[in-house]
Amino acid sequence: MNSAAEQEIRQLIDRWIQAVRERDLPAIVAVYADDIVAFDAIQALQFKGKADYKAHWEMCMGMCSGPMVFEVAQLTVHASGDLALAHWLNRCGPADDESQCGFMRASVGYRRTGGQWQVIHEHWSAPFDMQTQKALFDLKP
Amino acid sequence: MNSAAEQEIRQLIDRWIQAVRERDLPAIVAVYADDIVAFDAIQALQFKGKADYKAHWEMCMGMCSGPMVFEVAQLTVHASGDLALAHWLNRCGPADDESQCGFMRASVGYRRTGGQWQVIHEHWSAPFDMQTQKALFDLKP
Repeated sequence: MNSAAEQEIRQLIDRWIQAVRERDLPAIVAVYADDIVAFDAIQALQFKGKADYKAHWEMCMGMCSGPMVFEVAQLTVHASGDLALAHWLNRCGPADDESQCGFMRASVGYRRTGGQWQVIHEHWSAPFDMQTQKALFDLKP
Repeated sequence: MNSAAEQEIRQLIDRWIQAVRERDLPAIVAVYADDIVAFDAIQALQFKGKADYKAHWEMCMGMCSGPMVFEVAQLTVHASGDLALAHWLNRCGPADDESQCGFMRASVGYRRTGGQWQVIHEHWSAPFDMQTQKALFDLKP
């Protein structure tokens, strides 16, 4: 248990969530390590490297134009040595129609290099229904 | 970087993958911490605690009866102090019809307690298509 490191990770997540709400792409990708491997919820199995994942974020930002709900729930942070792991449920959707908002799952790995925490891995997803194979967005925690 | 710990995690994953192939439920759940929080690919947002997640594994095992493909690809392991993080692509499907096999993404967090590594977090998913909202199983790494 390293509560100072956990506190740093929680603050980093707070700032990052705010950057996503503000569609501030440079601030979103500033925390990513050059060798990040990301499993995003849509489109591809994985994105390898900061440039590849940044291009994906740019495409996503282009799809959502209006004000956005992007909220962290049930955040858990583990940290030891120079490694940290956070996971949470993330409420997402259009701010002008909260009936369309749903929960995604986020798991993020962090590595401390030269005193600075960077994201080395992200995993975002929605679970899917076995019968219809469709993503489930109406589940409540 | 802690290559001894990384080696321990890789061995643990090898044994665990074998346990899944053999549908050995006690061996599958033996590595889980009592307070595991799991984001599985299907059905629910999350499973909280070993008993809850074990019941889900039992249900999944009941659904798949024949020989199974369950293979790790592109495994990355990070370890520092008493924390480790692994992520990989996992090829799954029926062994008697490999055309139905597809790749999932797995991210797993480990905590060392009393010299023993336990899984504190699992996240399994398939990405989905934005248009159809259907899970994508035909993607190749």
